[in-house]
Amino acid sequence: MPLLEHIHGGNVARASLKYGIPEEELVDFSANINPLGPSRRINQAIKNKLGLISSYPDPECGELKTALSDYLGIDREYLLMGNGAAELIYLFVRVAGCRRALIPVPTFCEYSLSVLSQGGEVIKVAMDEKSDFSLPVAEIIRLIPQVDLIFLCSPNNPTGKLVDRETIELILDRSLSHGVMVLVDEAFMDFVPQRLSYTMMPQVGRTSNLVVLYSLTKFFGIPGLRLGAIAAPSDLIKRMNDAKDPWNVNVLAQVAGIEGLRDQEHMQSTNRLVNREKKYLFDSLRGIPGVRPIAGAANFILVDISGSGLTSGELTDLLGRRKVMVRDCHSFTGLAERYLRLAVKTRTENELLLTVLKEILGGKE
Amino acid sequence: MPLLEHIHGGNVARASLKYGIPEEELVDFSANINPLGPSRRINQAIKNKLGLISSYPDPECGELKTALSDYLGIDREYLLMGNGAAELIYLFVRVAGCRRALIPVPTFCEYSLSVLSQGGEVIKVAMDEKSDFSLPVAEIIRLIPQVDLIFLCSPNNPTGKLVDRETIELILDRSLSHGVMVLVDEAFMDFVPQRLSYTMMPQVGRTSNLVVLYSLTKFFGIPGLRLGAIAAPSDLIKRMNDAKDPWNVNVLAQVAGIEGLRDQEHMQSTNRLVNREKKYLFDSLRGIPGVRPIAGAANFILVDISGSGLTSGELTDLLGRRKVMVRDCHSFTGLAERYLRLAVKTRTENELLLTVLKEILGGKE
Repeated sequence: MPLLEHIHGGNVARASLKYGIPEEELVDFSANINPLGPSRRINQAIKNKLGLISSYPDPECGELKTALSDYLGIDREYLLMGNGAAELIYLFVRVAGCRRALIPVPTFCEYSLSVLSQGGEVIKVAMDEKSDFSLPVAEIIRLIPQVDLIFLCSPNNPTGKLVDRETIELILDRSLSHGVMVLVDEAFMDFVPQRLSYTMMPQVGRTSNLVVLYSLTKFFGIPGLRLGAIAAPSDLIKRMNDAKDPWNVNVLAQVAGIEGLRDQEHMQSTNRLVNREKKYLFDSLRGIPGVRPIAGAANFILVDISGSGLTSGELTDLLGRRKVMVRDCHSFTGLAERYLRLAVKTRTENELLLTVLKEILGGKE
Repeated sequence: MPLLEHIHGGNVARASLKYGIPEEELVDFSANINPLGPSRRINQAIKNKLGLISSYPDPECGELKTALSDYLGIDREYLLMGNGAAELIYLFVRVAGCRRALIPVPTFCEYSLSVLSQGGEVIKVAMDEKSDFSLPVAEIIRLIPQVDLIFLCSPNNPTGKLVDRETIELILDRSLSHGVMVLVDEAFMDFVPQRLSYTMMPQVGRTSNLVVLYSLTKFFGIPGLRLGAIAAPSDLIKRMNDAKDPWNVNVLAQVAGIEGLRDQEHMQSTNRLVNREKKYLFDSLRGIPGVRPIAGAANFILVDISGSGLTSGELTDLLGRRKVMVRDCHSFTGLAERYLRLAVKTRTENELLLTVLKEILGGKE
């Protein structure tokens, strides 16, 4: 397994050590978190309820599950809460007993790690830029008989590409007769302007092989607290619940989730800001020589920097020394050393990124 | 798997529903948590560092691991931090591939659940009151060839009995030649007055089959935040680290652990209070007809209530309706319906418990 700093963004402590810059001075575009941060109501609720840390968390996450069930439009019996979505990937693979997974790449590396670390095998199929990083549907369907699990990430990390519902339904349908599970990761779905046309949540429970993963850390801005959910047929939910320790979701994550789901205004402000700033960042990046942003539906932008004459590692380091952390995508299978992933942040931060990029690469002001 | 309310203490939400009493009015003797609660420095540190919730936690728990390594007197390479000790029990059983566990009972039920939920088998050996709930060493040694893992809890939950070092070393030695792992759970060791004479921590790494489990939620009073550690030979630590998701320990648990380990004064006050109050509670319980406290080394007291003419469930309910939550021990294998477990709390709370017990059972004031 590669070192952690190579495989995930958001490791501010490591970047601070590497570039000799205090953590608080780093501007982090490497983690795809709500640029507004968590709702103020979350901070206030945590302060008000700090006394709860001296009691055990509710093992059933009752209040949180009810709130999330309302928000996602899915029955409570299909939901299990987790210590971040990452915990639930490992738990699902283990409990479902999946041994051969099909993974379209580039994508989030934990899918592969969760299977490999449990002794399973992974078959990767490539999505490349020539075909706009779209899903190789025919190839996936051809491989279904050889696997027992297919991972689909929509919108995909790091490309931002959505998978349309008809495609997922086709894959689900063909998988069903072979007993193959399909896990759709919707960790970034809340940032998608038309999420209701894309989310597979309402279909959970209607077909026995659909599992949808959900994260509350990105959109609600609380990756430090850890909070995720998995939606699956109720018998599978029960088996996953039995197979984990009882208090996996800490009490402040539960408080934050409940309060975050109440703050409609913060959610709307987040969507407005991300939509506006993504357009600004995307358009501005097109004006910088040597970089080429790729259109996507999430709160981050994949950028082809091969025209710059630098590798992604070199450009990441040049930015890092100037206090700007970005995600070098060389560890994503298929992206080699020519892509960066940039989170969409606030205007001031985005301007800083653009200014520093121009200083390094040149370009008109 | 039995319902959760039957198998663990500390479920205040459930008790509130069951007895129709607001959560904040319940006095909880069912969870064995530091009666002083967390250090004030922990609360302050969390408030000061609340901004960290919008960044990912340090996956390596670097600062926390250094502090804990100093406190426990064990090299960092032998330590892995977890989302509570419970997560680490499941992780260890899975990664070590243990399929047949020997468990002296009564004890903490998660040992058994972690093995059974992964398809393994459990052999239980009884510790009964006739032999002062001591470990049946000869029987354990006889069974070693039939198992691949032995769980020892010291001090044991719910009896409070310590296992002396010579006994553990004998079991370790005999287990080694059969390739049997020994997990010693020291979740309550910090409450033991002479813990340095009993802890097996310094031996970790010297023999390949010793694993020691440690919890920071009880002594440091933060069960809501989840924080535990496991000490094991470094190759096993590495395998466990690879097999889990990277961000299992949330950032506020890390902050709380670091700050709690710094507050020597709170730790000393805790030990003074628990020692004094345990003596007070123990002596007072002996004066109440129908109940008989059993001497133990931890921050809780097992009480035989069979002389009261009530079952443990009946007495638990009578106390619950009077706002006092206790741990009905009927779900601990071997304890039937005749024991309660009472956490040692502050003088005011202990007096309340004693008063209510006397109201129910009679007895001289």
